[in-house]
Amino acid sequence: MIKKLYLHNILDSCNIVYKKNIPNVPIHRAQDLSAKEKNFISFFNNPKYLNLLKISQARAVIIPQKFIKYLPKKIIPILSNYPDIDYAKVLNFFYPDSYFTKISYNNLSPQDISKKYKNIKFGINFYLETGVKIGRNVFIGNNVTIKKDCVIGNNVNIGSNVVLENSIIYDNVHICDGSVIGKKGFGFKFIKNKCIRIPHIGKVIINKGCEIGSNCVIDRGSIKNTIIGENTFIDNLVQIAHNVVIGKRCILASQVGIAGSTYIGDNVVIGGQAGISGHLIIGNNVKIGGKSGVIKNIDDNKVVMGYPAKSFREFVKDNNK
Amino acid sequence: MIKKLYLHNILDSCNIVYKKNIPNVPIHRAQDLSAKEKNFISFFNNPKYLNLLKISQARAVIIPQKFIKYLPKKIIPILSNYPDIDYAKVLNFFYPDSYFTKISYNNLSPQDISKKYKNIKFGINFYLETGVKIGRNVFIGNNVTIKKDCVIGNNVNIGSNVVLENSIIYDNVHICDGSVIGKKGFGFKFIKNKCIRIPHIGKVIINKGCEIGSNCVIDRGSIKNTIIGENTFIDNLVQIAHNVVIGKRCILASQVGIAGSTYIGDNVVIGGQAGISGHLIIGNNVKIGGKSGVIKNIDDNKVVMGYPAKSFREFVKDNNK
Amino acid sequence: MIKKLYLHNILDSCNIVYKKNIPNVPIHRAQDLSAKEKNFISFFNNPKYLNLLKISQARAVIIPQKFIKYLPKKIIPILSNYPDIDYAKVLNFFYPDSYFTKISYNNLSPQDISKKYKNIKFGINFYLETGVKIGRNVFIGNNVTIKKDCVIGNNVNIGSNVVLENSIIYDNVHICDGSVIGKKGFGFKFIKNKCIRIPHIGKVIINKGCEIGSNCVIDRGSIKNTIIGENTFIDNLVQIAHNVVIGKRCILASQVGIAGSTYIGDNVVIGGQAGISGHLIIGNNVKIGGKSGVIKNIDDNKVVMGYPAKSFREFVKDNNK
Repeated sequence: MIKKLYLHNILDSCNIVYKKNIPNVPIHRAQDLSAKEKNFISFFNNPKYLNLLKISQARAVIIPQKFIKYLPKKIIPILSNYPDIDYAKVLNFFYPDSYFTKISYNNLSPQDISKKYKNIKFGINFYLETGVKIGRNVFIGNNVTIKKDCVIGNNVNIGSNVVLENSIIYDNVHICDGSVIGKKGFGFKFIKNKCIRIPHIGKVIINKGCEIGSNCVIDRGSIKNTIIGENTFIDNLVQIAHNVVIGKRCILASQVGIAGSTYIGDNVVIGGQAGISGHLIIGNNVKIGGKSGVIKNIDDNKVVMGYPAKSFREFVKDNNK
Repeated sequence: MIKKLYLHNILDSCNIVYKKNIPNVPIHRAQDLSAKEKNFISFFNNPKYLNLLKISQARAVIIPQKFIKYLPKKIIPILSNYPDIDYAKVLNFFYPDSYFTKISYNNLSPQDISKKYKNIKFGINFYLETGVKIGRNVFIGNNVTIKKDCVIGNNVNIGSNVVLENSIIYDNVHICDGSVIGKKGFGFKFIKNKCIRIPHIGKVIINKGCEIGSNCVIDRGSIKNTIIGENTFIDNLVQIAHNVVIGKRCILASQVGIAGSTYIGDNVVIGGQAGISGHLIIGNNVKIGGKSGVIKNIDDNKVVMGYPAKSFREFVKDNNK
Repeated sequence: MIKKLYLHNILDSCNIVYKKNIPNVPIHRAQDLSAKEKNFISFFNNPKYLNLLKISQARAVIIPQKFIKYLPKKIIPILSNYPDIDYAKVLNFFYPDSYFTKISYNNLSPQDISKKYKNIKFGINFYLETGVKIGRNVFIGNNVTIKKDCVIGNNVNIGSNVVLENSIIYDNVHICDGSVIGKKGFGFKFIKNKCIRIPHIGKVIINKGCEIGSNCVIDRGSIKNTIIGENTFIDNLVQIAHNVVIGKRCILASQVGIAGSTYIGDNVVIGGQAGISGHLIIGNNVKIGGKSGVIKNIDDNKVVMGYPAKSFREFVKDNNK
């Protein structure tokens, strides 16, 4: 994925205007501000992440004029009125298919598959892109699509009509029929009535022993990853948005929805049809009643219910008036 | 689709009782009262549509005795105690598969497809019925079913396991994995404990630049069309019922549901898991909070939340008591 | 499915500790306490089912020490600290794939299918396991998976991308694209941070004239069956959990969710996005408003709405204050 490229070429290719006096350094990747590597470009548009900017290893950062004062001297500034849009263009340059759901059409033939994956049981009509890694004792259903860069552990059971993309599935995971894992997140920007789709280059990571029900959708992260902790059980028709992190041994009943970038602790139980807003922190051992609408952070060990969700005691009291 | 047929034959075929003295005129189609063509039959059972009846071009109308006084003289009356059931029979006569979800089994061979659609990228195992039109630079995933009469524009991206029926998809639309577009709507009548399925002959029209998430369902219209406006973005697991019309640049978050025949303006933002009842009018620039239940019309520019939905200010006030 | 086996062997195979002095009787099956057959093993862990225990025909019952006093003398006790876990092991012994969603890979070739099912219309790429029975005038879409032991009646219409498992589908049923019927229920136990998946050996029974929308999920029963009554209509994206029983002529709008073991009477109408908790009884002719959250039993003929659901009159009054 790493290409030998220089800053000026990249900005030119992306139609991003820049001051010609900025140094034309090598840039090999677009990355999160916090990445630990060399020669990458990033962006900054939210003072909340100021601490990350201050210690960032980025070589160049796309940034609006008003925040330029925060930029460390060693980082090259690329001034922009729409830093996230321009960064989307750069991501798209490095990962040209990352705002699509499309397959690569670079798949193995049935013969190659049976040779390469000797010990895997496949149903009929499987589609595997090159580069997929699959462990031992794996059972795969019919009409399954597994896209490049997916990694599947041992003792995994994948149902029929499942689509896997940008996903790492650890041992003993079951994914039931019809679920879509690793789809691009729901990200876009309207600029003057024109819509720009935001690339999603993160992954979905499903840790050991998890279960994902039928007809669920788990979106991959935008830049970071969407993560499901060990032994977490998810029922049918559940939506997990991009960048969500769920802890260990959680239980999500059917039709639950979790919006983007929310963090959920360990041993959390979420009743059917409950919804959790984006960018929240839900503590460990929290219990959320069915159909609740959670719009605030929740501390460890709390039991909540209602819309908006409040303590279970209050919910009962309010409804017995 | 037009057949040379006469009124008496049609009514006989449908087991609809009629007065033998009505003229046996040619009837070539069953249509909405407002249709602009010749020789069609329609029905009337709701005084709300009286203005349409008065100027209707219909040749014959199925109508109950109590409304016969409203019927223009030039239209032939077919008296009925159950006008919608009898009209369903007539629709079924003209469009015999329109209350099924079934495929026609009239599909092209892989050889014919690669000849006819030279510039389209298909995944494995695609099913295309005859008569489908597809534009340039279109990417189609695996296990996709596209039924007759679908039209697909340029630069369209269709994910895997998608089913398309009675649909017109304009340029630059993305439809993600597992979505079902153009399914018959949820329509039926119980008459004396027997269930009559209502045919659905409308289309789904998805305008330029839209995005439909994964595992969504968009039902086709009953007689009119279900329409999604330009650049509208729809997240995963969303339900759009028959005859719904959505404007331009709307955003529907995950697990939203919109019941039949509701009209939604431009630039409307609908939070996750919100539901909107049927036959409502939602104005332009409206914002509907996550998990709201909307049961009334909403004026332009309003921000609402709650169940039932009220102004956002009231919702906040009520929940801070 | 019946194996000639003896109690000691079964317990040894399952790593269940038992008193060596219990008689080594023949055991041919694991069953519900109420089963009407010979030589089966069951379990007891809930005093609610005491009446069933007293008249049970079981040969042996897995039971905790505290309930041993209730056990009829003629039944052999297997003492256990975790009766449901140990029973899960026994179920797994008899039905080794019952906690998976996986296919058996024991499917017919296209040639065998066209020979055996001469009068059935299949789409492309169907997967049929041996032992499936299909009636007359049945239409099946593309990419359909039908697993062993399914029985399908006459005049049935199955959409594309449908998965059927452990299901009995009676005459005139329509199942729309993308639905998953007969998936194992959402059952598991955490014992000391280790997760035990519970086998599900029940069926889904869909009676005459029903309709199931697109992208729905209906889970099969754990030991009993999940049942949908005659002429019941279910819209898209609906979740029906294990052991649910729904009566005749019910209407479930889109995105409804019904939790495990709930019983719903005849002629019940449930609005879109409503949710019903588990283990409830909903009477005949009940109407449940859209988005309601039902957490208590409902008597016949009631109309309810709200979260939590209350009488419709109260709901309206409360929201007009």
